[in-house]
Amino acid sequence: MPAVGKRVWAIAEGWIPATSHGPAPQLTSHETICVLNAGEQDARIELTLYFADREPVGPYRFDVAARRTRHVRFNDLTDPAPVPRETDYASLLVSDVPVVVQHTRLDSRQAELALLSTIAYGES
Amino acid sequence: MPAVGKRVWAIAEGWIPATSHGPAPQLTSHETICVLNAGEQDARIELTLYFADREPVGPYRFDVAARRTRHVRFNDLTDPAPVPRETDYASLLVSDVPVVVQHTRLDSRQAELALLSTIAYGES
Amino acid sequence: MPAVGKRVWAIAEGWIPATSHGPAPQLTSHETICVLNAGEQDARIELTLYFADREPVGPYRFDVAARRTRHVRFNDLTDPAPVPRETDYASLLVSDVPVVVQHTRLDSRQAELALLSTIAYGES
Amino acid sequence: MPAVGKRVWAIAEGWIPATSHGPAPQLTSHETICVLNAGEQDARIELTLYFADREPVGPYRFDVAARRTRHVRFNDLTDPAPVPRETDYASLLVSDVPVVVQHTRLDSRQAELALLSTIAYGES
Repeated sequence: MPAVGKRVWAIAEGWIPATSHGPAPQLTSHETICVLNAGEQDARIELTLYFADREPVGPYRFDVAARRTRHVRFNDLTDPAPVPRETDYASLLVSDVPVVVQHTRLDSRQAELALLSTIAYGES
Repeated sequence: MPAVGKRVWAIAEGWIPATSHGPAPQLTSHETICVLNAGEQDARIELTLYFADREPVGPYRFDVAARRTRHVRFNDLTDPAPVPRETDYASLLVSDVPVVVQHTRLDSRQAELALLSTIAYGES
Repeated sequence: MPAVGKRVWAIAEGWIPATSHGPAPQLTSHETICVLNAGEQDARIELTLYFADREPVGPYRFDVAARRTRHVRFNDLTDPAPVPRETDYASLLVSDVPVVVQHTRLDSRQAELALLSTIAYGES
Repeated sequence: MPAVGKRVWAIAEGWIPATSHGPAPQLTSHETICVLNAGEQDARIELTLYFADREPVGPYRFDVAARRTRHVRFNDLTDPAPVPRETDYASLLVSDVPVVVQHTRLDSRQAELALLSTIAYGES
């Protein structure tokens, strides 16, 4: 099986609600970037965040080992800076090997949660 | 990093609920077009709205600066005309440089919000 | 502007809840196929439905005029046959000119609605 | 009509809630992989699951007959192993003929359900 996916992925939507209902961490309002590395080489990932009115922040670096998936909450990113809540952002992921990327939000600002998800935009 | 994305993006779904529950503007029922310009040149955007039974309306014009994202609520468009509520529409975005586009709806007609999102269809 | 999109679109998910809460038709549980024809020629559409355990049903035929969008509820299809509720199905749309297709479900079986949406899979 | 779709599909997101509200099986929290085989040859499917911290599990094997759709709940997979609940996973589907794949989650941990769906990533 050759590696599956693309090396560059973009997510134009991004917004983390500031409040939550329900037990943490599962029902904490959050956004997640899900990365699948189905290939035989570890993936070195660089993630950059874009904002409406200031320079991009990043890269955030993490690895996804060969034959593994990693679901990273944007809420948990800290280096080089945490992701501000209730702020429009977008993200660009660059990998050194092909991977597949999906984006998900759980919004628990109200008593009953809401979900959204989409495949990201991949190229190269 | 070369520019990422496409110059033409289409969203076939569009429908803004007329009513809302919860504090404005965050919990106002709305639809958003999220545009990421990860490139080094400002993007000049033209957005056209399509309807079921009348001629398209537009272009709505806005810019997305280089290395910025912009999340535009369809609710807030006014020039050349506001977007009618509870009316089927679709949209076509044309940019002079590559960008990435995602579509999101928040529906708060009922006490508990619902969300949907998808990558748009990109070409060229 | 040349026509935008593809001529063949597939939606692998399909399931219409049988019950609803809230005023009809807006809050009736439903699935919708949204078609954008941004081109200058009317689109003649053939939609075929696929099931788990019997032959496909169709084609359902409808037009989407040039520079128009049409959001068709699967609930409302009747010719050649209505779409059964609470039954797994999928759909294939073939157009004679390029169009763009998105799929949406509103589920109001419970007091508070839920939504899902995705771009369809396009080719040709 | 030639076969529609791709032979390799990836879903980077996967997470099955452990609890549910409402009558089973319809309102049981679940994830589904929806496969449309619009072609004239039966599809032999191999599905492999990827995890964060251990080797992939699979292949899970099933067929989708020609001109049929099949919506398989990840909850129901048992051979070679059931899918753990509340655990990050991802999936890779390989078919011997072109098919189309969509991913959906229903989350009924709370009294009111939430939904997400997206087209998978297809190639080859």
